[in-house]
Amino acid sequence: SVRNLGLEKIANTVRFPCKFSTSGCPLNFHHADKTEHEELCEFRPYCCPCPGASCKWQGGLSDVMEHLKKIHKSITTLQGEDIVFLATDINLPGAVDWVMMQSCFDYNFMLVLEKQEKYDPAQPTQMFYAVVQLIGSKKEADNFVYRLELSASRRRMSWEATPRSIHEGVVVAIQQSDCLAFDSNAAQLFAENGNLGINVTISRI
Amino acid sequence: SVRNLGLEKIANTVRFPCKFSTSGCPLNFHHADKTEHEELCEFRPYCCPCPGASCKWQGGLSDVMEHLKKIHKSITTLQGEDIVFLATDINLPGAVDWVMMQSCFDYNFMLVLEKQEKYDPAQPTQMFYAVVQLIGSKKEADNFVYRLELSASRRRMSWEATPRSIHEGVVVAIQQSDCLAFDSNAAQLFAENGNLGINVTISRI
Ligand SMILES: [Zn+2]
Ligand SMILES: [Zn+2]
Ligand SMILES: [Zn+2]
Ligand SMILES: [Zn+2]
Repeated sequence: SVRNLGLEKIANTVRFPCKFSTSGCPLNFHHADKTEHEELCEFRPYCCPCPGASCKWQGGLSDVMEHLKKIHKSITTLQGEDIVFLATDINLPGAVDWVMMQSCFDYNFMLVLEKQEKYDPAQPTQMFYAVVQLIGSKKEADNFVYRLELSASRRRMSWEATPRSIHEGVVVAIQQSDCLAFDSNAAQLFAENGNLGINVTISRI
Repeated sequence: SVRNLGLEKIANTVRFPCKFSTSGCPLNFHHADKTEHEELCEFRPYCCPCPGASCKWQGGLSDVMEHLKKIHKSITTLQGEDIVFLATDINLPGAVDWVMMQSCFDYNFMLVLEKQEKYDPAQPTQMFYAVVQLIGSKKEADNFVYRLELSASRRRMSWEATPRSIHEGVVVAIQQSDCLAFDSNAAQLFAENGNLGINVTISRI
């Protein structure tokens, strides 16, 4: 059939508003670029930052803390730039998450420790992933550095990086080992009575 | 049959010399304790410290450096307390070892990076293990701390520990993840053009 090049040309120049325009995004895009922008759009609603897929809450950044206090009441919050995140019973089987909040510099940070089972037939093991996210935008997160440290007699392991924004989340960071990652053998070097203490230090840069 | 308790009592009190008595060990042991001592005996000959099982050399501690210079000529030596161990082509498939020597404080340290394949059916990956051993006894090794650091833009991973003595070797340390351990995803964060630079710092304590 005959293509209507005139119409195609018009369609290619038309710009469409971002789907989050009602949330305040002022930008318009060509059809081909719209989806990519919408993934990064700062007006995209924030999802619940708790690990796991069970909580479907979404809302604005300013509503996140209220949601956590109301629905995720059991999460501990510690005050200060330099705290210890104590993950208890790390040797219990299965995939598990530990979560904690850290308040400092007038911000709230969420610390996540995730345990995954690895099924290498030669040597089944577990991997642990620890990462820090900021209850804030990516721009705000770029102003900080977090440091995670495991220490024991004559051994120390550490990881420093920029916190993730909860807008981005930690799933990709964990998939890419872009975080403190260690296996269960290493965990035994640092755990005491099955509990693992992770030193968390937040700095402004 | 009748047991000769008198003879048994005598056998249990007899002490036998350590099998390395000809190498200088002055100690004697009850039969039950002899094997355990011999594994730890400081007069046990030193094996070649190079990773892999192919070199069967054994000798005294004072002969190790000469053996390395004569038989393992291709190993690079860097001078100094703070150096960069450059492991090239880390993405080539298969299990591989990288080895380097570092000279400082009038001692020689051997740096080992080992890559292993992990066959988790869900997600086959590779694991890297980096560890430092001292060309020296365990007593001498306890006077030092080594630090390994990987760094990239806005990320840093580190490990600090006492070096192993080559008398003990690094196989157990690697099996127990008692070293700097990271997977290939993490390696990509720090590698440039397929080459990985590890900062190695040795300190006296
Ligand atoms: Zn937008
Ligand atoms: Zn929630
Ligand atoms: Zn002996
Ligand atoms: Zn050799």
